[in-house]
Amino acid sequence: MTRSVPATALTRYLDLAISGEQRPAVRLVLDQFDEGVPAELLIGELLRAAQSEVGERWHRGEWSTADEHLVTGVSQASLEALAATAPAVAAEGLVVVACAEGDWHSLASQMFAELLRSSGQGVVYLGASTPAEDVERFIERRRPDALTITCNLALAYVGTARLSDAAHRHGVPVLAGGRALTEARAAALGADAWAPDAAAGAAILRLWRRDPPAVDRGPVLLDHAALELDARAVELADLAFDHLAQHFPAMGGYDDRQRRRTHEDLVYIVRFLAAARLVDDDEVFRTFRAWLERLLAVREVPVAAVTAGLDSLVPLLRDVDEHAWRLATSAAGSHA
Amino acid sequence: MTRSVPATALTRYLDLAISGEQRPAVRLVLDQFDEGVPAELLIGELLRAAQSEVGERWHRGEWSTADEHLVTGVSQASLEALAATAPAVAAEGLVVVACAEGDWHSLASQMFAELLRSSGQGVVYLGASTPAEDVERFIERRRPDALTITCNLALAYVGTARLSDAAHRHGVPVLAGGRALTEARAAALGADAWAPDAAAGAAILRLWRRDPPAVDRGPVLLDHAALELDARAVELADLAFDHLAQHFPAMGGYDDRQRRRTHEDLVYIVRFLAAARLVDDDEVFRTFRAWLERLLAVREVPVAAVTAGLDSLVPLLRDVDEHAWRLATSAAGSHA
Repeated sequence: MTRSVPATALTRYLDLAISGEQRPAVRLVLDQFDEGVPAELLIGELLRAAQSEVGERWHRGEWSTADEHLVTGVSQASLEALAATAPAVAAEGLVVVACAEGDWHSLASQMFAELLRSSGQGVVYLGASTPAEDVERFIERRRPDALTITCNLALAYVGTARLSDAAHRHGVPVLAGGRALTEARAAALGADAWAPDAAAGAAILRLWRRDPPAVDRGPVLLDHAALELDARAVELADLAFDHLAQHFPAMGGYDDRQRRRTHEDLVYIVRFLAAARLVDDDEVFRTFRAWLERLLAVREVPVAAVTAGLDSLVPLLRDVDEHAWRLATSAAGSHA
Repeated sequence: MTRSVPATALTRYLDLAISGEQRPAVRLVLDQFDEGVPAELLIGELLRAAQSEVGERWHRGEWSTADEHLVTGVSQASLEALAATAPAVAAEGLVVVACAEGDWHSLASQMFAELLRSSGQGVVYLGASTPAEDVERFIERRRPDALTITCNLALAYVGTARLSDAAHRHGVPVLAGGRALTEARAAALGADAWAPDAAAGAAILRLWRRDPPAVDRGPVLLDHAALELDARAVELADLAFDHLAQHFPAMGGYDDRQRRRTHEDLVYIVRFLAAARLVDDDEVFRTFRAWLERLLAVREVPVAAVTAGLDSLVPLLRDVDEHAWRLATSAAGSHA
């Protein structure tokens, strides 16, 4: 019978990790393994749950980026220790696992790679944000059975499409997964298949080994207006920021850091609008906006600041992308 | 007698790593450990030598960024496996190890942290590029004996100074090390001591535990002209690029990628000029320039392109920073 991860293990693990007690935290994970909990469960449940909790606590303002880095480092060490300890499975085939350029969530990608590996899949893992041209040279040389792209951030959609193109140019099929994707989004970015989790990914890759899919697709055609919007994000944020400074009285009391953050947030608003347009899915922007509002509330910046920021941006968007303008307008309107 | 790392181990390790044979590569490192080679030697010689070789081969154009990521991932796994395997040493005191904001060379920093740990030093390792404000919150809460900053890239000098300030505000002394620092540069960025390697760092931290240094320094005063130069790097590169496009005939034949790279190189030229000014050490710029010329030669871009780029930049620099202008002029002149 398959053992499961005890509920107390997560709490204990996080306590150790946040105290910088790396060795005892890794020991806890390995002890679970020795007691018969499979590596896949420890990766897919314990370590993944720990990282979700890290993200949550950061979002709630309880943990800083330094805390997040500390715990992520411990989780990385635990993942590597598990990978080195678990008995080697005879590896079949070869897939390359890569993060799209712009995606630095390498731990999530590495967990995916290790889970594929533990299912018996031969894996080469390329790590965070890798330029498409370099992944292409690698594919050309190693001729893998498939390229697996993990995409955990909507800002990496363009990078994901570039990676799909690179693989397709060499007749290599693309499997995509990760938090920022759905089946439709993955298809819009050129993937030949989408996997909701590593188990599904492993199943698809096994299927492809027996029965390789036909790959004869041309390059992914991304919406030009959305690409332009993305490229001009900083310029548009600059203009909106100036407007906001003149028309939003509360800004007068902001310190340097709050002003810098506000400018950053405006850049992100534009880039997530562009991301929503790239995969033709307004939900991408709505999810981001809900996330941002919660974050601002924690930082004690009123939601009105975001609405005012959107109000400053909206008039600038119409000339660049009509649909993004409508999406921003409806978002602005819902809080006006 | 202390065993040393066999010369063949490095070659074999690199062969395995570049083939994506992570598990056998980690096994090789652990086998050396089992045969009596101390973890410090395996980290300080084998893994560090492997990473130097990776950098060299990338620089010579033999390995792409994807190859570099692949081997770095294997070295990270080896480091974690060693850390988990080596017997725990009773840890004394607590130091925080951080990379300055803008420095993503986390593996070098992590090796430093593990070497300190194996010397019996209590260590919390915060990973790549961490914002100074977050490191400060962490220091405030955990009250470490010292902050150790690793700086492997001159572009992280401002971040290093910000981290020094953050520690000093809480009376915590700063030890700095890493490839981009010398004793004088570390002092210019606010460090209370500099360590050429991890052994020296461990010795200084032991000394400080017995005899904590007085910390009453005000904030690091960075040169305003240099900071302005750094902040305006993209703007100045834009202007120089336009000038170059008009006056350097060879540019006409460049493709999109070569044009993008040329623009990037111009940004780096300005930022390394600023970095040299920040620590008042022209060698920072000369080292970068030699590195860039070698890189361009490998990419089959003539040195004349850099010289022409500098020629386009020089007239723009004089108003921002007289010294940077002189430094760039002498560099331009030396190849004219």
